[in-house]
Amino acid sequence: MKSIRVIQYGLGPIGCNTARAIMEKKGLELVGAIDIAPDKAGKDLGEVLGLSDKLKIPVSADAAQLFRKTKAHVVAHTTQSSFKVVYGQLETAAIAGLCVVSSTEELLVPSLRNPELASKLDRLARKQGVAMLGTGVNPGFVMDTLALVLTGVCTKVRGIKITRRVDASTRRMPLQRKVGAGMTAAEFRKLVRQGKLGHVGLLESMYLVAAGLGWEITRHQEKIEPVLAEATQTTAYFTVQPGDVCGIKHTCSGISHGRKVLDLDLQMYLGAPEPQDSVEIDGEPPIKMIIHGGVAGDIATVASLVNAIPLILNVSPGLKTMLDMPILRAFQAV
Amino acid sequence: MKSIRVIQYGLGPIGCNTARAIMEKKGLELVGAIDIAPDKAGKDLGEVLGLSDKLKIPVSADAAQLFRKTKAHVVAHTTQSSFKVVYGQLETAAIAGLCVVSSTEELLVPSLRNPELASKLDRLARKQGVAMLGTGVNPGFVMDTLALVLTGVCTKVRGIKITRRVDASTRRMPLQRKVGAGMTAAEFRKLVRQGKLGHVGLLESMYLVAAGLGWEITRHQEKIEPVLAEATQTTAYFTVQPGDVCGIKHTCSGISHGRKVLDLDLQMYLGAPEPQDSVEIDGEPPIKMIIHGGVAGDIATVASLVNAIPLILNVSPGLKTMLDMPILRAFQAV
Repeated sequence: MKSIRVIQYGLGPIGCNTARAIMEKKGLELVGAIDIAPDKAGKDLGEVLGLSDKLKIPVSADAAQLFRKTKAHVVAHTTQSSFKVVYGQLETAAIAGLCVVSSTEELLVPSLRNPELASKLDRLARKQGVAMLGTGVNPGFVMDTLALVLTGVCTKVRGIKITRRVDASTRRMPLQRKVGAGMTAAEFRKLVRQGKLGHVGLLESMYLVAAGLGWEITRHQEKIEPVLAEATQTTAYFTVQPGDVCGIKHTCSGISHGRKVLDLDLQMYLGAPEPQDSVEIDGEPPIKMIIHGGVAGDIATVASLVNAIPLILNVSPGLKTMLDMPILRAFQAV
Repeated sequence: MKSIRVIQYGLGPIGCNTARAIMEKKGLELVGAIDIAPDKAGKDLGEVLGLSDKLKIPVSADAAQLFRKTKAHVVAHTTQSSFKVVYGQLETAAIAGLCVVSSTEELLVPSLRNPELASKLDRLARKQGVAMLGTGVNPGFVMDTLALVLTGVCTKVRGIKITRRVDASTRRMPLQRKVGAGMTAAEFRKLVRQGKLGHVGLLESMYLVAAGLGWEITRHQEKIEPVLAEATQTTAYFTVQPGDVCGIKHTCSGISHGRKVLDLDLQMYLGAPEPQDSVEIDGEPPIKMIIHGGVAGDIATVASLVNAIPLILNVSPGLKTMLDMPILRAFQAV
């Protein structure tokens, strides 16, 4: 099996872990890296990843130039959440004839918020003969793809309830901060009103499930609420006083012609009991699935990106979603 | 959306339920039916299905003729378990230019027991521009595809344990008989030696998972054992004495270069406690999934066949496996 040559685009925590996973995977070869941060661009990738050896891969700040100079097949893209913001990055990759697997949350259903950009990128990708995909664990797996897979053995589906409950105290500090832990309830609500708090991609998950089932969502309801600490909670990083925020409850319902058919409930807070991912299908047959402990977020996102790499080279060109892909599975896994 | 025209091939219990599900599904149109049984061939399909109205679809015993006369797109095929036995039926469909979704258990990994027939059918299907797929719930979903889907969020997989435990007392009589309930242990073991007892497709499930992960299974171990009744057990159909067989435990392990990597454990017996489907992945991250109550067998097999119909028309021609397919999901589900 000839190696697939991969360029890592974005060297935040997820990007660095993706780079490491690519290096460990037989069949993949890491041949380039991109990041515009002044403390990363120009350095050797080994240094940025905190390895003891240099990798002789200089981190480039100029994607177009790197794509021109480096023979590669796929870009692993982990920069930002907004499709609009990353559009230019994806365009550059397509023009260079490179396939892309991306963790950009809005790419899960690119047409949801940016239908015109989605058509434009799809046309470009087809013209260039490359395929592009947004995936990850959430969105991308636990609250969407996995639920769809389970409906595959149902003749009828009347409704689906999907829950993810994460104990944020076991997660790294940026996540604890991201869910609002340590804020007052008033600060939390203010950030929600400003659109600065909430899980990016929950709406995408809901619309991916609806699209997969052929359901027309005529209306949706989204709610972002703080979970308040009942007692003092101390994490490895900070302390939360009783009455202050220890995390978030973000829910989303999909209504199809007056009937609620989808219910997504994401809870991420310090000390959440019995963390789990669950899917409950009101259908024939009914299905009640639980992943006890839940799927660990960061490593799972890295895994879905890496596991998508061999598959993205074998689908027809265009801007794809998880509905177009063969089953993502681990490869060269041991 | 134009209707997909479907012919139902095989009118046993699964076939009849598949025909009913096709009739209920918007977007599908049932246009023909085949069965060679003298009590079915020649009758109107409505009568065979036990409906009050005729369907004006005469059940045909001559597949080739029906395929020639009836304009159709897909055959839903539910006749027998052995690829070798059904080969001619599939060939006839391919020659007529029809795609096939089949419940034939050995078709899950057609090359496992019949590599030459598999290549031959694949070549024919490509030449004729049609796609063919074996699927179902077990094999086809709970002990193979679902496990593979879960590995999609793992960077490493060291091993997988898959368990299905079915309380046979809740199932129809043929299944209760099929698992050996009511036999003496000696009768059970004799039938196992004759190859007449055991779940067809367990080995296929294991090899599908291995193929999906790129694992080479260098050796496998299969065991078929009776589960003996501890007390008298009475079902809706018969009574089992203590010490006699109340069901089956069929296990299969896959060894890759000296290391056990796959463990499949299928238990189907009267009164089995906590029926469930579970997948346990020793990987990064580790994953422990349970479907409480398990996925109901017969209706789920019907569902996977019906749900595969729209997808089979959109994949490239050839003899496919679940590894080649987009995610099977319910469609026109409510």
